[in-house]
Amino acid sequence: MQTINQKRFLHWMDEQAKIGGTDAGGLNRPALSEADLAARDWFHHLIDEHGFAYHMDGAGSQFARLPSQNPDAKTLLIGSHLDSVPDGGRFDGALGVLAAFEAAVTLKEAGVQLPFHLEVVNFTDEEGTLAGLLGSRALAGTLSREELQHPRGGRARLEAGMARLGIDDNSILDARRNPDDLLGYIEVHIEQGTRLESSKTAIGVVTSIVGIRSCWLTFTGEAAHAGTISMQGRKDAFQGAALFARQARQHVIDNFSPGVVNVGQVEMAPGAFNIVPQTARIAVEFRHGDADIFDDMEAALLEIAQESADACNLTLTIKKVDAIPPAPMTPAFVQAVEDAADTLDLSHTRLLSFAGHDAQSLAAVTNSVMYFVPSQDGISHNPHEYTAPQDCINGANVMLHSVRQMAE
Amino acid sequence: MQTINQKRFLHWMDEQAKIGGTDAGGLNRPALSEADLAARDWFHHLIDEHGFAYHMDGAGSQFARLPSQNPDAKTLLIGSHLDSVPDGGRFDGALGVLAAFEAAVTLKEAGVQLPFHLEVVNFTDEEGTLAGLLGSRALAGTLSREELQHPRGGRARLEAGMARLGIDDNSILDARRNPDDLLGYIEVHIEQGTRLESSKTAIGVVTSIVGIRSCWLTFTGEAAHAGTISMQGRKDAFQGAALFARQARQHVIDNFSPGVVNVGQVEMAPGAFNIVPQTARIAVEFRHGDADIFDDMEAALLEIAQESADACNLTLTIKKVDAIPPAPMTPAFVQAVEDAADTLDLSHTRLLSFAGHDAQSLAAVTNSVMYFVPSQDGISHNPHEYTAPQDCINGANVMLHSVRQMAE
Repeated sequence: MQTINQKRFLHWMDEQAKIGGTDAGGLNRPALSEADLAARDWFHHLIDEHGFAYHMDGAGSQFARLPSQNPDAKTLLIGSHLDSVPDGGRFDGALGVLAAFEAAVTLKEAGVQLPFHLEVVNFTDEEGTLAGLLGSRALAGTLSREELQHPRGGRARLEAGMARLGIDDNSILDARRNPDDLLGYIEVHIEQGTRLESSKTAIGVVTSIVGIRSCWLTFTGEAAHAGTISMQGRKDAFQGAALFARQARQHVIDNFSPGVVNVGQVEMAPGAFNIVPQTARIAVEFRHGDADIFDDMEAALLEIAQESADACNLTLTIKKVDAIPPAPMTPAFVQAVEDAADTLDLSHTRLLSFAGHDAQSLAAVTNSVMYFVPSQDGISHNPHEYTAPQDCINGANVMLHSVRQMAE
Repeated sequence: MQTINQKRFLHWMDEQAKIGGTDAGGLNRPALSEADLAARDWFHHLIDEHGFAYHMDGAGSQFARLPSQNPDAKTLLIGSHLDSVPDGGRFDGALGVLAAFEAAVTLKEAGVQLPFHLEVVNFTDEEGTLAGLLGSRALAGTLSREELQHPRGGRARLEAGMARLGIDDNSILDARRNPDDLLGYIEVHIEQGTRLESSKTAIGVVTSIVGIRSCWLTFTGEAAHAGTISMQGRKDAFQGAALFARQARQHVIDNFSPGVVNVGQVEMAPGAFNIVPQTARIAVEFRHGDADIFDDMEAALLEIAQESADACNLTLTIKKVDAIPPAPMTPAFVQAVEDAADTLDLSHTRLLSFAGHDAQSLAAVTNSVMYFVPSQDGISHNPHEYTAPQDCINGANVMLHSVRQMAE
C-alpha cells in the first residue's frame, strides 16, 4: 500500500516552523507579513525543487500543479494556508499545505496518472489578520470590492500587505476561477478541539462547517437604589441576562448538541455597586452545522431570551450582527475520505467543524470536504498547539488515499 | 392634642423647593453649591425670624437652639439635611429639617418647658457630593483628616465648597461635640421605597440602618474558541457569574429577607463574541440591619460564589471593597416614636433603612432613631420624588410628639 515519505514530510513541517518561529515554540506569521513572505518563498522553492508547475493568483494564493494527461480535465484542489494568527501555533494551516504537497509529491514520484489536474494550494490570509479567508473567497468569487475597502484588519494593513506582495484590489477580484473547471477541494487541518483526542480517534471527517450567527441582546429594567428597593420589587436587568445565559447553555446541550452558544461580552448600565442595573447588553454567538436546525436553534434561543426577560420583569431588544450560513460538505467527498481512512486502517468519525476554514469558501462553489487530525488538549491559536508526528503522518496519508479514491 | 401648624409647614416646604428648583419639579442643590448656600441663608433667616439662637458649626451644619431652663441639661438634636443629589427631589432631607423646625416652633410658641436643650439641625453634605454624611460625622467625631484629603467627590470640589462657606479642614474636625452633652437624635425622612405605600402604613420606624458590604468577585476559567470547544468542556467564567447572581438573589430572598444583594457591574475578558470568557469580574453589594445576621449573610454569599465557581470549573477570587457596619437604633427612642404615632392614631410599622442617613453617624455616639413617611412609588433621587402633604404633616406631628415623649 502506498504511503507518504514520513521523514521528508516531518522535515518540511520542522523547516516551515522556523519561518516566523517564536521563542515559545509557536509561529508569528500573519498574512503578508515579512515572515509570511519568507514562508511563501520557501514554499515556492519547494515546489520548483520537486518539478511542479508553480503559479500565484491575483490574491497571492500559491499553487503547485500536477497536470493530468487529459488537458480538458477538471482540477482537484488540495491544501490549506501557511499564514498564522499573531503568536499562534505551528500546525494550524501549515499541516494542511504540506500534507497535501507531500501527497502530491508521492503521487508524482510514483508516476500515478490522475484523471484530473491536481493543484496543491496555499491560500492567502485564512486567519483574517487582513480580511479572512481572503485567498479562498477570491478564488470562489465571493469576496466583494466593498469588503476590501473595509477589511476586518483595517484597510491600511491590507494595503501594506498587498504592496509587499505586489497585488492589488483588482488582481484579488480577478483571482476568481470558473467553478466549472473545478472538481473539488480537500483539506486536512488540526481539530482545534478535543473530540478526536478524547475518543482516541485518528481522523474526524467534517460533514459541515458550522454557520455562525451573532446578536446583541439588551435586557432593560429600571435603575434603582440597590438598598431601598425590595428584592421582589426590582427590575434588575442583570438577572435577565444571567437567567438567559444559564438556560441557553442548558437548552443547547439538551436539544441542539453539538451546536454551541457563547455569551462573550456583557455591558451594564449605570454600572455601580449601589445601583440596580437598568440595562445588561450581552454579546451572544451560536453555531450549528445544519441550516434547518440552525433556524430552530435561533428561534429557541430568542424564545429563552424573551422568557428570561419576562420572568425578571424586563424588556428585551435584539440586534442581529452576523449570519454566516453553514457550509455542508459534499457527501461523495466525505465518503472518499472515509474510504481512504479505512484503506489505511485508521479509526474515523464524522463531526462538525466549529471554526471557519478555507473549505467553507470552496463549498459555496464546488465539491468540498475537510478532515481533522487530533489537537493535544484542543489547544489552538497558541504557541502550545501540538499534534503528534504520527497524527500529522496520518493526515498526509489520508490525503494521498483520498486523492486516489477520487481518481477511481 | 397638640399638632403642628400645617399651613405654615407646607408653605416652608414649597419655599425651600424654589431654591435650586428645576424645571422638572425637583431640586439641584448639591452641598455647598450656590443653591445650597442660598437655602442655608433662607433657613438662617427662618431661625432668626422665629427667635431661636442660631449657630453654625465648623463643618457648616446649622443649628436652631431652644434652650432648656436647666443649663446643665443634655441636648436633643432633631433634623436632617437641606442638600440634594444633583437633579434630585424636593423631599429628601428638606422634609426632615423643616418638620423638625416646625415641631420646635410649635413647642416654642406653646411655651413648653423641655428638660433638655432642643436643637434643630441642617447637616452639611448628607448626600455625598463632597464627602457624604460630612456634617453628621464631623459632629460625631468619626470623620478623619485623611478622608478629607480624598473625599468621594474629589478634593477640588470639597475645597471649592469649603471656600464658599468659609470653613476648612481644621474647622470641620473641630465640629465634634462631646457625646456626653448629647441626649440623642431623631430624624424623619421619606422612605425612598414602597413598603409603607404598599401596606398603607403612615409611619415606618427604623430599627436599624443597614450595614453595607461590597466586594469584587472574579470568576476565572479559560479563554477558548467559542466554536471548537464543546459546551461541556468549557471553563466559561460568565456561567459562574450568572449562576452566582441567580442563586444569591434567591438565597437572600429565602433566608435573609429583608436583606438585599445587588450585582451592579460586570467586567469580562477577553470580551468578544467568539471567545469563551476567561474572567468575569462582578461588583457585589449586600446590606442587612443586624450585625450577626450580616456576618452569616456574607458567609452564605461567599459560599454560593465558591459553589458557583466549582460547578462551572472555575476559580474564585474575592476582593473586599467596603464594609459599613449596621447602625441599630436605640430601642427607647424607637418606642418613643411609636408612642408618638399611637398618640396621633397613626398606623406604624418597624422596618430597616436600606439607605445611609445622618442618623447612622449619630448612632455611633448617641441615642438615635429615625422614621419614614411614604414615598410615592418609592421614587427617590429623582425630580419625580413625591410625598403627599398629609404624609409630610404626619411626619412633623410625629416629630412634635416624639420630642414630647422624650420630655416625659
